[in-house]
Amino acid sequence: MTDQVHHHTHVRAYGANSADKPLEAMDIPRRAPGHHDVQIDIAFCGVCHSDLHTVRGEWAGTLYPCVPGHEIVGRVSAVGAHVSGFQVGDLVGVGCMVDSCGHCHDCEAGLENYCDGMVGTYNGKTADAPGHTLGGYSERIVVNERYVLRVRHQPDQLAAVAPLLCAGITTWSPLRHWQAGPGKKVGIVGIGGLGHMGIKLARALGAHVVAFTTSESKRADAEALGAHEVVVSRDAAAMAAQARSLDLIVNTVAAPHDLDAFLTLLKRDGTMVLVGAPASPHPSPQVFNLIMKRRALAGSMIGGIPETQEMLDFCAQHGIVADIEMIRADEINAAYERMLQGDVKYRFVIDSATLAGGAGTTR
Amino acid sequence: MTDQVHHHTHVRAYGANSADKPLEAMDIPRRAPGHHDVQIDIAFCGVCHSDLHTVRGEWAGTLYPCVPGHEIVGRVSAVGAHVSGFQVGDLVGVGCMVDSCGHCHDCEAGLENYCDGMVGTYNGKTADAPGHTLGGYSERIVVNERYVLRVRHQPDQLAAVAPLLCAGITTWSPLRHWQAGPGKKVGIVGIGGLGHMGIKLARALGAHVVAFTTSESKRADAEALGAHEVVVSRDAAAMAAQARSLDLIVNTVAAPHDLDAFLTLLKRDGTMVLVGAPASPHPSPQVFNLIMKRRALAGSMIGGIPETQEMLDFCAQHGIVADIEMIRADEINAAYERMLQGDVKYRFVIDSATLAGGAGTTR
Repeated sequence: MTDQVHHHTHVRAYGANSADKPLEAMDIPRRAPGHHDVQIDIAFCGVCHSDLHTVRGEWAGTLYPCVPGHEIVGRVSAVGAHVSGFQVGDLVGVGCMVDSCGHCHDCEAGLENYCDGMVGTYNGKTADAPGHTLGGYSERIVVNERYVLRVRHQPDQLAAVAPLLCAGITTWSPLRHWQAGPGKKVGIVGIGGLGHMGIKLARALGAHVVAFTTSESKRADAEALGAHEVVVSRDAAAMAAQARSLDLIVNTVAAPHDLDAFLTLLKRDGTMVLVGAPASPHPSPQVFNLIMKRRALAGSMIGGIPETQEMLDFCAQHGIVADIEMIRADEINAAYERMLQGDVKYRFVIDSATLAGGAGTTR
Repeated sequence: MTDQVHHHTHVRAYGANSADKPLEAMDIPRRAPGHHDVQIDIAFCGVCHSDLHTVRGEWAGTLYPCVPGHEIVGRVSAVGAHVSGFQVGDLVGVGCMVDSCGHCHDCEAGLENYCDGMVGTYNGKTADAPGHTLGGYSERIVVNERYVLRVRHQPDQLAAVAPLLCAGITTWSPLRHWQAGPGKKVGIVGIGGLGHMGIKLARALGAHVVAFTTSESKRADAEALGAHEVVVSRDAAAMAAQARSLDLIVNTVAAPHDLDAFLTLLKRDGTMVLVGAPASPHPSPQVFNLIMKRRALAGSMIGGIPETQEMLDFCAQHGIVADIEMIRADEINAAYERMLQGDVKYRFVIDSATLAGGAGTTR
């Protein structure tokens, strides 16, 4: 899908040159916009756990230099000749992908996220230098218009919109696919970057929302986010009171844990959807708990472009944004450490203005 | 749901008096038919793996004496005053359950199999002596008409109809629920009592059927049963050729095995349904394989009464029965040993006429 391009500029970014080094300021190349490209001056970029796993080489296959970031918002600063949907000055977003094959069943269904040829916003294969994609911890990005989203929020909400591009769509997609809405009882397991969006979105969709957390200290916050009920999962009596009552559970916890404790809370034909993959496997779930009530254990990965736009529009209409803590680019290494401690409510967002410096050629 | 009854007769049966004893001939009580009851003279009873697990106390909670058997076919020999659906002489069947609460969401949906108050055909709670239900390895059974199925097959097919009541409905229910049919590619894992029915039913429903077996020696049999393709699951290249191609897999293998090998064969939004619960857990499946293509791992347990009738009618119309080997009641212990070796094509069926003897009061 990517246009053939021959020119590029350099922009300021923050990334790592190897798995064992901290992130640091660097210059990276960006292609000149091709006919179908949108050039975006990045205003803010959210910080996702995937960024940390990738840049530290905790998942196989990280290419260096690695510039993470796939929760990108900003303003269009140039468009290619054939771009019809965007113009200079538009508020836009870019999420977890910047390309896909464009013609498979998944792409045709608007589920480019499941395309075998999907190209991640960072660490994906590209014809651009240096041969792999570089993400949103940078001043500027150039993306084929098919993978650019329109942001209809107020400009002063822009920083808090950024996490919708990954945390938002990752919870929205399963909530919509498994039909969360009025009359449905929906559980959200884990109250972090993903979970706090799951609570807000499920509530706004009209579902009865039960938040599950290991920590009594998160009760008030979960209620403030919109949970009708909060269950501390270590409280056996509180868990038992939810048995066989939930239509859907969106489980955002990537750490290995007892899935049966939640599967047994599902009604007949209920589904628990995992949106995080643990580094080591969960304890194997009891098949009996699936068989007994025709329950399902499913997975879901981010979301397609049309549903991401749908989510952004829904959020703009309902005034929904993420709860964020703004950081400077040079605070990213410290922010990772705090993220590992769960010490963030609920998403760090990099103010891209703090990237500007002598090395950049575009500001 | 069960009528209050005060009288009973004794009939000849085959069962065990404890977990460590072989099955032997015994007399058991049967209630006189209440107002809503159908009394059935059993002609044949299929032999299910559950029978063996239960009678040998391999699952917790077996009550003795234990008379297994929940693949029952026979003729109505008496009906209660309020029975409207059956009359003396009708060919009928009884499957895995003989009662349920009758008014919960599951029962109202015709999914009595998922009712919390479901009463198994054997080893279930009942007001009848001896306090737990006694199954189909017997000359006669008395069942509330709601749980009695009509058999429309030819009378000479009756023995081979018996396994439809458990093996048939256990595979039919997920095939229908997950919409196996024309244009769908359906995998059946395991070619035994359940799997051989799964192949026949999926084929008759119009799906493209891929049978998976660990044994090259079963290829010709699987093709004869109706499989369009047969894949030996130890053949890595043959498995890889099926990657991401199946809409649905019905996995009948209860022994712990690598679920990922099959999950990765599913298309986006595909589901693998487990219909057998292993004694020890399967290796934990990789969450990544669920997330990548929004796949689901589900369970399914037998089926409801309306769908069991639907399956029986479909089978009668399409001339479908199980492949069976008929045995005498006194061969049951030996049959269990052969079943454990997988040495049966594909279901043993007890000829109930071989139960008759001096102790019975009804023949």
